[in-house]
Amino acid sequence: MSTGVAILGSTGSIGRSALAVLDRHRDRFHVVALAANRRADELRAQVERYGPDLCVLVDETCANGHAAAGGWRTGSAALIEAATHPDVDIVLNAVVGAAGLEASLAALGAGKRLALANKESLVAAGPLVLEAARAGGGELIPVDSEHSAILQCLKENETRDVDRLLLTASGGPFRSMPAEELERVTPAQALRHPTWDMGAKITIDSATLVNKALEVIEAHFLFGVGYDRIDVVVHPQSIIHSMVELVDGSVLAQLGFPTMEMPILYALTYPDRVPDSGPRRFDPVAAGSLTFEPVDTRRFPAFVLGIEAGRTGGTMPAVFNAANEVAVTGFLAGDLPFPAIATVIEETMRSHDVHAVDSLETILAADREARVRAREVLTRQC
Amino acid sequence: MSTGVAILGSTGSIGRSALAVLDRHRDRFHVVALAANRRADELRAQVERYGPDLCVLVDETCANGHAAAGGWRTGSAALIEAATHPDVDIVLNAVVGAAGLEASLAALGAGKRLALANKESLVAAGPLVLEAARAGGGELIPVDSEHSAILQCLKENETRDVDRLLLTASGGPFRSMPAEELERVTPAQALRHPTWDMGAKITIDSATLVNKALEVIEAHFLFGVGYDRIDVVVHPQSIIHSMVELVDGSVLAQLGFPTMEMPILYALTYPDRVPDSGPRRFDPVAAGSLTFEPVDTRRFPAFVLGIEAGRTGGTMPAVFNAANEVAVTGFLAGDLPFPAIATVIEETMRSHDVHAVDSLETILAADREARVRAREVLTRQC
Repeated sequence: MSTGVAILGSTGSIGRSALAVLDRHRDRFHVVALAANRRADELRAQVERYGPDLCVLVDETCANGHAAAGGWRTGSAALIEAATHPDVDIVLNAVVGAAGLEASLAALGAGKRLALANKESLVAAGPLVLEAARAGGGELIPVDSEHSAILQCLKENETRDVDRLLLTASGGPFRSMPAEELERVTPAQALRHPTWDMGAKITIDSATLVNKALEVIEAHFLFGVGYDRIDVVVHPQSIIHSMVELVDGSVLAQLGFPTMEMPILYALTYPDRVPDSGPRRFDPVAAGSLTFEPVDTRRFPAFVLGIEAGRTGGTMPAVFNAANEVAVTGFLAGDLPFPAIATVIEETMRSHDVHAVDSLETILAADREARVRAREVLTRQC
Repeated sequence: MSTGVAILGSTGSIGRSALAVLDRHRDRFHVVALAANRRADELRAQVERYGPDLCVLVDETCANGHAAAGGWRTGSAALIEAATHPDVDIVLNAVVGAAGLEASLAALGAGKRLALANKESLVAAGPLVLEAARAGGGELIPVDSEHSAILQCLKENETRDVDRLLLTASGGPFRSMPAEELERVTPAQALRHPTWDMGAKITIDSATLVNKALEVIEAHFLFGVGYDRIDVVVHPQSIIHSMVELVDGSVLAQLGFPTMEMPILYALTYPDRVPDSGPRRFDPVAAGSLTFEPVDTRRFPAFVLGIEAGRTGGTMPAVFNAANEVAVTGFLAGDLPFPAIATVIEETMRSHDVHAVDSLETILAADREARVRAREVLTRQC
């Protein structure tokens, strides 16, 4: 029986990789729903190719006439429809940013498998996401290469035997740039990631190491591991995707040449493996030297703030994430120097009163307030 | 309930490491039987410390009066007694060479867990060992760091999803020595292993890469993977202990600073993990660069012969192993130049008529004949 898949964020980097994976596995999966934010032309091409039951373009101002002509649904409520469509078994949530949160909650609440590339869902509302999975019978499987690596390393019941998670970080394009030069970094430079070909937002987050802080928070919720037992190590080659240290001192790792297609496929087939001809087969000799460095926390202040937000808990991770989204948008627009991303985040966090994560409304309010505050700080920085 | 352990080869490198492990886990395990080949004084000290029910010294000519005084058993039949003692749950077989075969068969036939460090058992008589496990209800768990790594990487049922095993090899002390200098290599030089502290026989086998060929054959039987799907890569740092490539292209690895205590503990606790304070915790930054090279087959002809023996099958792996044991003894005695180890193996293999592995007698006969033949070749080489 073929498994029905919804792809939220189908025209982004992860969405396109997912469709490439599904192309090779049409015997097992079929596309039930496709949802994009703005790229109507690309979405239309996907619709013609995959013939989904439901097509969503969130931002109707970008519809270019396609939405009306094709019977597409628009608006963010339609994203929830895609996430809960009765014929959908697996929801791949590759929406960028906190905008993906409600779809995550809806998918899990409807008992779907949620293949989660939208790490912001867990960062902003970890306790709510876990509760939605519990209450709705949904299943949460990570798509991030680091978390997929950890999931792949752990045998059944071994989560209780985890002593430490060791997330690897490429260190991004500015790993060894002198601190004073960071002031003059352009968006184009920051978008040139050394090892991963990804969307703009996550590429900037990799340059600031905010992405790694988000992943630490994500790992905390996914695997139930305390922050004291999650370490990050810089591994510029991005071959080892992460490691797990078990209580007996053994370390397991998942590795390979960087490609998101592997973790996407695993999230679809978990706990099974299916033969796949897609990714370039790993060759350790061709991989060259694998090296490791500690994170230079002076160079990456936004990373430190993210870890602090995680440890603080409550609404603080949502605020960290919202401030970062505003700051990255400002940086990409040329409104903010690169190092000021951390400044915007820090000032936004400092002015926030932390609340417990008791409801979606609490999270959305904290997110909204943080964006307002971050924009004020950003305006001052311009 | 405490688990009873027999250690065959208790005064060797693996045996002593095993006792160090058991020292830290006295709440879970107790020593029921200890067996050594010749080191009576050291065995006596172990007996005083661990108070086993049964103590075996195989070579009674080395007893120094201890055997008679302590009620020890002697001779190789006593090794079988230790392997099948009713209070023994786990037999750690760390006997050196083909001498360990019968104890392996006996332990598995008696339904014990066999923690196998004696890879020669599987090399010489793989089909018989597997059959003994099946018939007797015994369980075969590898202790070699490479095979333990592979076992640790595979989730339940994932053995069927293995695409390729990637065994790592340190390359030994002569990895980059000019070929002409190998003629003059002394036993002392060959015994200086760059990363692992092990017994003499296995250290020489590491210098010739015979050890890696034995491990390929062992992996073939343990995991049921064809020789075309077992690769060896030189990894001089011995941090990644081996890797598994699954059908979807994902690669899993087990790693850590080199210590046999970790795989020994895992063989005792498998499939569980228990907290252990022994091994130095892994630190990727301290591990330095991890590098990989192809095996230089011209430099390691004995490795090539071993793989050939494995592919030929039948009695050939037993002959390869027996010839190597004779050659290594000759080299350590100063009777044979280092490169002639391969010559002895090759000539012995060339004169062997392969038989199917239908009985222990067939194996023992092939082993005996190979030793006779190898000694003839060795005498000519001296």
